[in-house]
Amino acid sequence: MRIAELSERSGVPVPTIKYYLREGLLHRGELTSRNQARYGEAHLRRLSLVRALTDVGGLPVAAVREVLAHVDAPRSSTHNLLGRVLDAIPPAGQDGSPEEEDLARAQELVRDRGWNCHPDDPAVEGLAAVLAGYRRTGHPLGEEYLVRYAEAVEQVARVDLDTLRDTEELDEIIEGAVVGTVLGDALLAALRRLAQSRESALRAPGREN
Amino acid sequence: MRIAELSERSGVPVPTIKYYLREGLLHRGELTSRNQARYGEAHLRRLSLVRALTDVGGLPVAAVREVLAHVDAPRSSTHNLLGRVLDAIPPAGQDGSPEEEDLARAQELVRDRGWNCHPDDPAVEGLAAVLAGYRRTGHPLGEEYLVRYAEAVEQVARVDLDTLRDTEELDEIIEGAVVGTVLGDALLAALRRLAQSRESALRAPGREN
Repeated sequence: MRIAELSERSGVPVPTIKYYLREGLLHRGELTSRNQARYGEAHLRRLSLVRALTDVGGLPVAAVREVLAHVDAPRSSTHNLLGRVLDAIPPAGQDGSPEEEDLARAQELVRDRGWNCHPDDPAVEGLAAVLAGYRRTGHPLGEEYLVRYAEAVEQVARVDLDTLRDTEELDEIIEGAVVGTVLGDALLAALRRLAQSRESALRAPGREN
Repeated sequence: MRIAELSERSGVPVPTIKYYLREGLLHRGELTSRNQARYGEAHLRRLSLVRALTDVGGLPVAAVREVLAHVDAPRSSTHNLLGRVLDAIPPAGQDGSPEEEDLARAQELVRDRGWNCHPDDPAVEGLAAVLAGYRRTGHPLGEEYLVRYAEAVEQVARVDLDTLRDTEELDEIIEGAVVGTVLGDALLAALRRLAQSRESALRAPGREN
């Protein structure tokens, strides 16, 4: 198909597609003349992945490029690849710089839960940055609550991995992991707002529970 | 204290403090002369809340202003106020526009879980937008997984509300809810990355589980 049809079928405007081509987020089409290229189903699919990562996931172009590089790279094992891809996805809202006490606490939690990831995993520092945020606002997160959050999230991670079971193709698994990780954060945030309203209503005065 | 001391104790640069004053995110100090004002502990505390919302939570200034307006407004019941405050906090990454089928699915989940929030709750549309994102990338989220995520998040919401039990002051409760909601999304994202690594390693070939 030509770029106009690619635009129509994907819902992505032609100038945006050209921008993605320039930025290397989308593979060039097969040239049919000096100024025209032909695109296929692979382009359509890649476009919808790029769009999910940018529009819904809110990732900057540089992060999208890094994630796609991992998806396209020749791979060793699925597990190693998954780890590299997930490391490239920056969790939102962790700009604060953690101090020694926050890092120590994050590392201790990882050890206690038996999560044994490598010590320089960026997610450990990300966790420490969030703990620093709680502390600096004068609302440090109590140990009991941190552990209960970790337990709930272990349940989330089991679902995350289960969603990948339905696919056999390595490409699909990686793409699913990327989509599920980025969109999953937004999903959990949306579900949490709804569940909070309910839980807050249950505890309002004048009710039994 | 003068603005220089406020800056030193809060770690927020003087120009940033002046910007917050202009934008109405921080109350003006008590004027001691035509060009000088005195600030107190309340300013210090508000500064750290603003910083948490912007730096760690990633909220734009307009959203911070709206959240603070709710915190400062005369209040009816804690539950109602909590609801209004939480509604003002936009969950990240939900720019996609949901279609009818996504909205219907989100509303059905809310009904099935007994979350009975009001039908125009922005979080329902936020949830629908995320479901649309999964669908559009060609990785629609299966019903079984959605329900299991919802169960895990109900556990999260119970912890959320429990963290507010330790405080008696209404002001503190609201501030804690704001901090916990915004930072909590980042916390869950960070914990999820770590728990995913662990879960993925457990399932790698060559292991029993």
